[in-house]
Amino acid sequence: MHPFDEAIELTPLGKDRFRGATSPAYANMVGPFGGITNAILLQAAMLHTERLGEPIALTVNFAGPVADGDFEIQAKPVRTNRSTQHWSINLVQGETIQAVATAVFARRREGWSATEAEAPTRLPEPRELPKISLERTPAWVSRYDMRFADGGLSALDGCEQSESLSRLWVRDEPSRLLTFTSLAAICDCFFPRVFLRLGRLVPAGTVSMTTYFHADQALLSAQADRYILGSARGLNFRNGYFDQTADIWSDAGQLMANSHQVVYFRE
Amino acid sequence: MHPFDEAIELTPLGKDRFRGATSPAYANMVGPFGGITNAILLQAAMLHTERLGEPIALTVNFAGPVADGDFEIQAKPVRTNRSTQHWSINLVQGETIQAVATAVFARRREGWSATEAEAPTRLPEPRELPKISLERTPAWVSRYDMRFADGGLSALDGCEQSESLSRLWVRDEPSRLLTFTSLAAICDCFFPRVFLRLGRLVPAGTVSMTTYFHADQALLSAQADRYILGSARGLNFRNGYFDQTADIWSDAGQLMANSHQVVYFRE
Repeated sequence: MHPFDEAIELTPLGKDRFRGATSPAYANMVGPFGGITNAILLQAAMLHTERLGEPIALTVNFAGPVADGDFEIQAKPVRTNRSTQHWSINLVQGETIQAVATAVFARRREGWSATEAEAPTRLPEPRELPKISLERTPAWVSRYDMRFADGGLSALDGCEQSESLSRLWVRDEPSRLLTFTSLAAICDCFFPRVFLRLGRLVPAGTVSMTTYFHADQALLSAQADRYILGSARGLNFRNGYFDQTADIWSDAGQLMANSHQVVYFRE
Repeated sequence: MHPFDEAIELTPLGKDRFRGATSPAYANMVGPFGGITNAILLQAAMLHTERLGEPIALTVNFAGPVADGDFEIQAKPVRTNRSTQHWSINLVQGETIQAVATAVFARRREGWSATEAEAPTRLPEPRELPKISLERTPAWVSRYDMRFADGGLSALDGCEQSESLSRLWVRDEPSRLLTFTSLAAICDCFFPRVFLRLGRLVPAGTVSMTTYFHADQALLSAQADRYILGSARGLNFRNGYFDQTADIWSDAGQLMANSHQVVYFRE
């Protein structure tokens, strides 16, 4: 079993409730990697017997660090329309809400399509780029094969920079067929942009993250387990909070997902 | 009383509950203007006796069109930390959930700040631009003084376009001191980008919208009731859904808020 599938494994506990447990393989500095929490919350809706269609939007508010051990997911379809479904999903430990999420699922129908966002260009092939160094990184980083073309951790040289762009090839390690849940996790693989701006690691943590899924199952299946292309940059840093935005592209140049997050930081 | 303040007026109904009513002044084609729903959901947290700090993030999932008349807001601070507070907020009519929202509030502290997003440049002054025509527009459009420099409704000439950028000056009409709630509403004043791409009006409606507040009360107060600058563009249109992103800038060039939304459309 792939470590990702182990990490998002949920056991039904009855109506709208599931039990899961944190996975040391996806540990971050404090608590689990935010991306795996995204994936677990989405997985509860994916597994739910009343689910309609495929995910369109997922918002996760990280209320507090998930403690090592068991947790419960409460996933409720609060409104089901003809082609859309609205979800409220919480991650709870004891009486404590650790994550507050919402999701929208939908049945799409084929129609006019166009991409206005610009795909990153002139990136070397993955095999021409070095793998990220895993020295002193938390466990979750080892669960990905990340190959930075720009803005990797090596850019943290103590000097402030005027730009926080990163571009990289990424896939699960070991490789795994891309799914909605793994895509939701990968959308959070970009470290906090304030590290690049300040040129050093500082305390930082996502408080809210929204992911829009542009891929449907057919696009995910076409991508299979090959590298996908990610880019991320910060937009505005102000008095302890900043936001960053990220795109995930297929290797054929299709936008699979984009995400936005607001992050707390201290200097 | 300003029509905006009338529209967001809420009466406490007891713990975590408020009553409000739709306002014909902010009616859209079907149901109310999404921006006013944003504002009402945020207002419930602003009024709550347990509120901590100022809004950082607001996500609203539009589950169904709010019917004309009374509604109830259920606003619950589900987790309060030392400097952040997480909210779950719903708009309910009878047994039906019409909007599912979450919010993050925080006490900021002053620190390192920088803007990486680029402010729109070379816009004419508001007085040099025509007011938007109110012919055949729903009521809410008349609640704003909108002056488009690019991508206004006049661009809907039946021809497809390759870009969906709009840039405009906007303020409440009549003018009103900018608040978190009015900023949340203005973030939704950009019509669906698919209109610009297709060159015509088509059925479309926001399903989920996230707003990040970069302004604190001091910045809002400094802006007072002067025009603010908005820009919006679509990113990816695919099989019935697209996303668009918008920035709101002060007239002194500070990013006040940005927002992201995913929108359903039919051709």
